[in-house]
Amino acid sequence: MKHVTIVGGGLVGSLLAVYMARRGMVVNVYERRPDPRENDVYGGRSINLVVSHRGWTALRGAGVDQAVREITVPVHARMTHDREGHTTRLPYSIDNKAIHSVSRGELNCRLLTEAEKWPNVHLHFDHRCVDVHLDTATCTFTHDRSGGSVVVNGDVVFGTDGAFSAVRQEMMKGRFNFSQEYIEHDYKEIAFGPNPDGSPRMDPQCLHIWPRQKFMMMGLANLDGGFTGTLFMPHAGEHSFERIKDERDLMDFFQAHFADAIPMLPDLKEQYFRNHQSSLVIVRCDPWVHKDKVALVGDSAHAIVPFYGEGMNAGFEDCRVLNDLFDRMGEGDVGRVLDAYNEARVVNGNAIADLSLRNFVEMRDLVADPSFILRKKIEGHIQRRHPDKWLPLYSQVKFTDIPYVDAWNEGLRHDRIMEEVLAMPNIEEQWDGEAVEKMVLTLLDRA
Amino acid sequence: MKHVTIVGGGLVGSLLAVYMARRGMVVNVYERRPDPRENDVYGGRSINLVVSHRGWTALRGAGVDQAVREITVPVHARMTHDREGHTTRLPYSIDNKAIHSVSRGELNCRLLTEAEKWPNVHLHFDHRCVDVHLDTATCTFTHDRSGGSVVVNGDVVFGTDGAFSAVRQEMMKGRFNFSQEYIEHDYKEIAFGPNPDGSPRMDPQCLHIWPRQKFMMMGLANLDGGFTGTLFMPHAGEHSFERIKDERDLMDFFQAHFADAIPMLPDLKEQYFRNHQSSLVIVRCDPWVHKDKVALVGDSAHAIVPFYGEGMNAGFEDCRVLNDLFDRMGEGDVGRVLDAYNEARVVNGNAIADLSLRNFVEMRDLVADPSFILRKKIEGHIQRRHPDKWLPLYSQVKFTDIPYVDAWNEGLRHDRIMEEVLAMPNIEEQWDGEAVEKMVLTLLDRA
Repeated sequence: MKHVTIVGGGLVGSLLAVYMARRGMVVNVYERRPDPRENDVYGGRSINLVVSHRGWTALRGAGVDQAVREITVPVHARMTHDREGHTTRLPYSIDNKAIHSVSRGELNCRLLTEAEKWPNVHLHFDHRCVDVHLDTATCTFTHDRSGGSVVVNGDVVFGTDGAFSAVRQEMMKGRFNFSQEYIEHDYKEIAFGPNPDGSPRMDPQCLHIWPRQKFMMMGLANLDGGFTGTLFMPHAGEHSFERIKDERDLMDFFQAHFADAIPMLPDLKEQYFRNHQSSLVIVRCDPWVHKDKVALVGDSAHAIVPFYGEGMNAGFEDCRVLNDLFDRMGEGDVGRVLDAYNEARVVNGNAIADLSLRNFVEMRDLVADPSFILRKKIEGHIQRRHPDKWLPLYSQVKFTDIPYVDAWNEGLRHDRIMEEVLAMPNIEEQWDGEAVEKMVLTLLDRA
Repeated sequence: MKHVTIVGGGLVGSLLAVYMARRGMVVNVYERRPDPRENDVYGGRSINLVVSHRGWTALRGAGVDQAVREITVPVHARMTHDREGHTTRLPYSIDNKAIHSVSRGELNCRLLTEAEKWPNVHLHFDHRCVDVHLDTATCTFTHDRSGGSVVVNGDVVFGTDGAFSAVRQEMMKGRFNFSQEYIEHDYKEIAFGPNPDGSPRMDPQCLHIWPRQKFMMMGLANLDGGFTGTLFMPHAGEHSFERIKDERDLMDFFQAHFADAIPMLPDLKEQYFRNHQSSLVIVRCDPWVHKDKVALVGDSAHAIVPFYGEGMNAGFEDCRVLNDLFDRMGEGDVGRVLDAYNEARVVNGNAIADLSLRNFVEMRDLVADPSFILRKKIEGHIQRRHPDKWLPLYSQVKFTDIPYVDAWNEGLRHDRIMEEVLAMPNIEEQWDGEAVEKMVLTLLDRA
């Protein structure tokens, strides 16, 4: 294996380029869009992202973590906003751990620049993948501006071309299990600018949530003092994008549900009717590889809903695991490495897809539910007393490298235990008492 | 609605052409393959089909049932062959009802000829659909021989282009839920010729099954005294196509599992290594329609495994239901008709997909199980005594027009009742006694 073709120069493609460059490969990256460092390719269409622990692990493995850290904002807690504008702060962990907010566009630029530092990495923008011959790892790209086309031979093709992957499209013609499932919610980005003096209008170290059960808004801090807000709502039905037809509908809706946000959004009307409404799709497939020639990495293999903030981190982890497997198994038998990658990652892709859907319910609904908040308090208490025995699901996902599928199974066990604990008499009063602790330990031993 | 474009001139496309022609539409049918009446387009790759009651209903609605009946062979029972060559005959119904075996190729030719009798139907072969503009119902086809292309405008496009539909491919770019799932079994066709005198080598009025749990062979009679046999087997693993590498593997395998078939297959070796090994895919999607412009009909909307013999019948029923909806709602508001079609059919597509998988287990496994045979006997007995209260699932699917989803729900209720009945003491002796009958009636009232 000497020549690697990477289809897609987004976040995962550019990180993978660095990993492969470090292995001494000749890496050609072909990206459909123009170079984002010269063009605003992301205008008004991206949810802000967060880097979690496993994201950092993968960035560190490629030696690019420092370059990325400079452009992130740490986020330590959720802050919920109720209809009356009251806020509640819910820390993500008992020991002030943080996830890190970052703009997709800035991060992509940073990673491309890191990749380009390697003389053996060649970036080609404005190239659309129109054909992949799987058995020979040969790709054909057309150049959008000139209309010309180029045929690229390589030893391996990595498809990092996202949820609507052209590489995957080719794989679908063979024995390939695939599903794409749209949730009923769409989203729209709404930017919160900073105050006139440049200071942030809300606590930038919190992820802000306006949970309204069937819909929600959230906001994540940017470096400039502003926030990227995102409204998630069904595309049709009672509270839906479909129902907001004019400025009056919009303002009535915000007045009723997000009144405290209105003063922070002086250009709400303009933004709402200008910004694109996007849908949310979950993609699952199997296998992610074709012989010793092709592998899907990132969203092309596992597009998920954004409610755990793990889509990018899962893709970065794919790169890290793939690189670890090459370290362990060598580059002599690429087919064996790709099979091992498939074996290791498909289950985790499915697990984080499930977890992300579950977290949507948590974010839009449960964070405003007293028994959910009580459960978080109990879990924190137990974790403090028995850190070796109890690590909440959220912490496993965001603050460790524990495989998603293991975290998910442990989380289901926690659910069963907490259901019994929350049913104890007077649990509101005795939640940090000895009886509860004993009960949890007994159930842990039994389950 | 005046101009209808039908993409795909297979079984469902040609029946739909007749239905639309009868409504006075100008119908253009574009088919990727050459005209099957002039070319052998199905050589060695098709399972024989059966027409069931709902298939006949749909053929009758288009006035083509007589033309089809002439080329069918009635099948009244399953005949199982065990490893020692012993056979058991299991009738499909208590009153000698039949399903009808037919060759896919012959049926396709017949239906195309029926469609072509209408002056307002135009058939175009060798035309591959390369693009569909959904919002305007505009299709682009390339002509395989000349390389030229044609753009076709119509009021409505019907995608009857099968499991790998090009029309559906276009719909997938929007909010469209889709899955394709391969089962582990592949299949290979093996033809049983007639005796030298032209007589059939087995009872032609039976569907022959060699159930071997993890794999199976079946045979369905043709008009010429021969049978189309089909071997279903995992593509990899213990008993699998992968394991049969040479003639010796093949003969050892047949000797061990299908010894009674060997004398009927003098050219087994040739056929086995010549005939194509095909995979089996289940396709589900939603919605099946795009506004008032496009609808998927048949396998493009619901490709299923062939074990209930209902794939074609489900597609024919789509045509019949669509035509009924036009009758009822008129042609003024096509969007409303397509929405109603979607509402009526997606649930039934999913139901027959589930039922077909279930029937695979039944065919390869249960038909050789004594308690399954006992259950069939009890069900027949109860049906005879109370025909208004008990119609076995198989009869609902094959011998009525009851919607698949209703049949499926009723079948699940039967399962629950029969589980309790089969657990009764001495059920082997008292299966046709009063106690069992009473039990069934009580459970029926309760469930």
